[in-house]
Amino acid sequence: MDAVTLWNRYQDWLYYHEGLGLFLDISRVNFDDYFVEQMRPKFEKAFQAMAALEAGAIANPDENRMVGHYWLRNPDIAPSPEIRQAITSTLEHIKAFARDVHAGTIKPPLAERFTDILSIGIGGSALGPQFVAEALAPVHPPLHIHFIDNTDPAGIDRVLAELGDRLYSTLVINISKSGGTPEPRNGMLEVKRAYEQKGLQFANYAIAITTEGSKLDQLAKSEGWLAVFPMFDWVGGRTSEMSAVGLLPAALQGIDIDALLVGAKDMDEATRVPDLRRNPAALLALCWYFTGNGRGEKDMVVLPYKDSLLLFSRYLQQLVMESLGKEKDLDGNIVHQGIAVYGNKGTTDQHAYVQQLRDGVPNFFLTFIEVLEDRQGESIEVEPGVTSGDYLSGLMQGTRQALFEKQRPSITVTIPQVNPRTVGALIALYDRAVGFYASLVNINAYHQPGVEAGKKAAAEILDLQRKVVSVLREAGQPLSLADLADKVGAPTQIEVIYKVVRHLSANDRGVTIIGNLGQPATLAIAATR
Amino acid sequence: MDAVTLWNRYQDWLYYHEGLGLFLDISRVNFDDYFVEQMRPKFEKAFQAMAALEAGAIANPDENRMVGHYWLRNPDIAPSPEIRQAITSTLEHIKAFARDVHAGTIKPPLAERFTDILSIGIGGSALGPQFVAEALAPVHPPLHIHFIDNTDPAGIDRVLAELGDRLYSTLVINISKSGGTPEPRNGMLEVKRAYEQKGLQFANYAIAITTEGSKLDQLAKSEGWLAVFPMFDWVGGRTSEMSAVGLLPAALQGIDIDALLVGAKDMDEATRVPDLRRNPAALLALCWYFTGNGRGEKDMVVLPYKDSLLLFSRYLQQLVMESLGKEKDLDGNIVHQGIAVYGNKGTTDQHAYVQQLRDGVPNFFLTFIEVLEDRQGESIEVEPGVTSGDYLSGLMQGTRQALFEKQRPSITVTIPQVNPRTVGALIALYDRAVGFYASLVNINAYHQPGVEAGKKAAAEILDLQRKVVSVLREAGQPLSLADLADKVGAPTQIEVIYKVVRHLSANDRGVTIIGNLGQPATLAIAATR
Repeated sequence: MDAVTLWNRYQDWLYYHEGLGLFLDISRVNFDDYFVEQMRPKFEKAFQAMAALEAGAIANPDENRMVGHYWLRNPDIAPSPEIRQAITSTLEHIKAFARDVHAGTIKPPLAERFTDILSIGIGGSALGPQFVAEALAPVHPPLHIHFIDNTDPAGIDRVLAELGDRLYSTLVINISKSGGTPEPRNGMLEVKRAYEQKGLQFANYAIAITTEGSKLDQLAKSEGWLAVFPMFDWVGGRTSEMSAVGLLPAALQGIDIDALLVGAKDMDEATRVPDLRRNPAALLALCWYFTGNGRGEKDMVVLPYKDSLLLFSRYLQQLVMESLGKEKDLDGNIVHQGIAVYGNKGTTDQHAYVQQLRDGVPNFFLTFIEVLEDRQGESIEVEPGVTSGDYLSGLMQGTRQALFEKQRPSITVTIPQVNPRTVGALIALYDRAVGFYASLVNINAYHQPGVEAGKKAAAEILDLQRKVVSVLREAGQPLSLADLADKVGAPTQIEVIYKVVRHLSANDRGVTIIGNLGQPATLAIAATR
Repeated sequence: MDAVTLWNRYQDWLYYHEGLGLFLDISRVNFDDYFVEQMRPKFEKAFQAMAALEAGAIANPDENRMVGHYWLRNPDIAPSPEIRQAITSTLEHIKAFARDVHAGTIKPPLAERFTDILSIGIGGSALGPQFVAEALAPVHPPLHIHFIDNTDPAGIDRVLAELGDRLYSTLVINISKSGGTPEPRNGMLEVKRAYEQKGLQFANYAIAITTEGSKLDQLAKSEGWLAVFPMFDWVGGRTSEMSAVGLLPAALQGIDIDALLVGAKDMDEATRVPDLRRNPAALLALCWYFTGNGRGEKDMVVLPYKDSLLLFSRYLQQLVMESLGKEKDLDGNIVHQGIAVYGNKGTTDQHAYVQQLRDGVPNFFLTFIEVLEDRQGESIEVEPGVTSGDYLSGLMQGTRQALFEKQRPSITVTIPQVNPRTVGALIALYDRAVGFYASLVNINAYHQPGVEAGKKAAAEILDLQRKVVSVLREAGQPLSLADLADKVGAPTQIEVIYKVVRHLSANDRGVTIIGNLGQPATLAIAATR
């Protein structure tokens, strides 16, 4: 394509949202008009499905749930007055709570004010808040946020050690939809214990965000925690940033949550337009479909050229992969759909792996996120007439160009600056693009049937572990792995048992292993207490 | 495969390094004996190539360089007394410098001691130090480390704002091999300016790590910086963690760099064994080859089940992708090689995208990194007989099992704990596996010819920017983009110019744009000063 044709293509397909100052450039994805025409009926269907979803259809039949994260940004479109009321009253509660914490009206017993937040949650309960904190929290926020987003004991210890005596003024947000997910439950128990070891009553520091009536809800209420905020069953974890899960920590950090909501609402409106060319989310979905042949044949590499957006790719990794990575389509055919997502930030990633992107296996398309504002305030010149920000911008353009020369397609999203409104808009843009793409490839974006198998297997392994310990204690003598497996009634599970005892032994948990660990069949296992 | 066959396969292929306590399990990659036999001649060649490389062959012909990162861990095998001497004297210099900084013998003019490190470097000069700091720095290190790893003005401002008045006791490490890479040069200039604004002389706070005789070296020496440490031309950026680039910040943070080196040396010895079954790096390379058909058909998803290893996947992303992502093989054939790498940590990523890994597009293989030690000290029980660490372990085993059921292959690397020795060993294991794999697919792992195009394009864009500003000033009246492009003598570069003026205008850089930004052809561009 010569330069003039390309410039015309650029202008022809350029999407611009004046209110948000947001651009979407898809000129470097090589679809042609014939492809677009072919896709029109699929988009008609996608627009209709989205309208039905927004009107309250049961879009997650596995859990018999509506899918209503769009209502959070605009309660007026919620399908019932009760839902509308629940959204607005929760928002008011969040703002009042944050105000009272900032004012010191809600305060810890032994300090003037809360200074820190410890957020305990995983998956959708962590990625949104982490992304938004990194993107938008001021350098000196009213409360500093910390995260426990795993069940790693050393990781938990590290966060607690970093907090140190600030635990006295730390507000703990416990996030769990069901209250039964092990990771946040474990984190909560470990943190509660840390408070108790300091002689502090956890209830005076703890709040919960959970479904009404859940185990966590019951615990919080029975122990008299500071507050409980609701999670709605019609909001999925990966789209929960605009619910209490995301808004409460944001408000506590002094982030303008109204602007976040407005940005998302503006984008929701823009992506409701049932016209491919005027709908940025539809254009994104079109490009994803084209590059990957509607089968996820290309990975999505996301490179924001702005440090504060570093976690956007990790946020999208969940949103896209958990939504689109499905075995079956809506008709029950085995399709193994999905799009793999990765990326950190530019220009940094140029120095890490643009070598492969330009020269190596062409199994990806790129999404550049460009931010027009370099910084607040003036810049020095690092060369005559050139600033650090010009380099950032020039290296982005240069990379896009160098990749396109080698037939590596790219999409560019441009925002004027990183602020609550544009971040809200980015979240909403991708929410919707994922919804459209799912419709194009005929899958359900709103369930996650594949995650249960690993959890179930883990529960069985933990059961086996209890039996192993009990058998070893009763045995009173060392056993081979094969004997041990027989005695716990799991003769085919020798490998699992080997790993369980290896782990227990490494942690002085009452199990010892005699022999060469590299030769499992020769080992003898015994209880040590 | 039934449970007994699988257990036998597990034991048959299990690799165990007793000294390091490191296990490698490749039983969940489904190669058969025939495949292994077929690969033997390729491995013979790979072992020979590695021996030649270690002996000082010119393994990077583009830059006419030897590839000697293995000598850093064992100077005795360096090919000349001069190199041996350079390695040992640098190591001594690093230790002495760290000791003096810790003791306050080397100190900032207006404070008792240095309290913080600001490391300015990108790519290989950032990823290793970031990974090692996250994995190994104590919670209360003698010096806290911060990174500027980009040319993002807002990102630089944020780091400086976080440091605040601690700038008075911050040691700035400027890392640039050539001294000419724009990102660290820009970071250095911005930080220098911040010192000057506080009335401080940068030279009293700055050290350089660079090639002898580079621009940066000259600057540091002429200004009398605190110290200069060498980068060797025979160490590539992505394998520089065991050079001053990695060791100096590690030593300053109180990390045992001797143990880091010993761990790497132990692994180097283990991976020098010219016997596939007894060489863990060769086994890794075998699996990569098998899963991706020697053509990178599968992405490498890396999941350490330990928070402190979060950045290992990002470190590997560079090491693997920049080394293996090559257009041509050693015979000049176009091959477009490479393996895409991504991942964060388990169990967290289970909640983000195991849905897709289990059910979705089967375009990956997984690498679990398991750490046997849960934490230092005792654990509470979160359920009878079960700890948070048991959950971490059980969820890892469960996920591996659930994925294997669906024919998703995985490799598991197990280490006893995260410490300098095991981290050194992990780095060395993957260094070598990458080298072997490159040999198997007949490419050069040690150059990066593809990264120049983007940089060159960026330099041209910055030149164009200067011309654009100058033409606008001379014009004295608004110009259309087409006219502007003509006048700067780049009529085909309208799109680039549009983006340049959009960026300048957004930053009040003397350029204004009149009209609707979404319709570039209608715009008028003018100088404002």
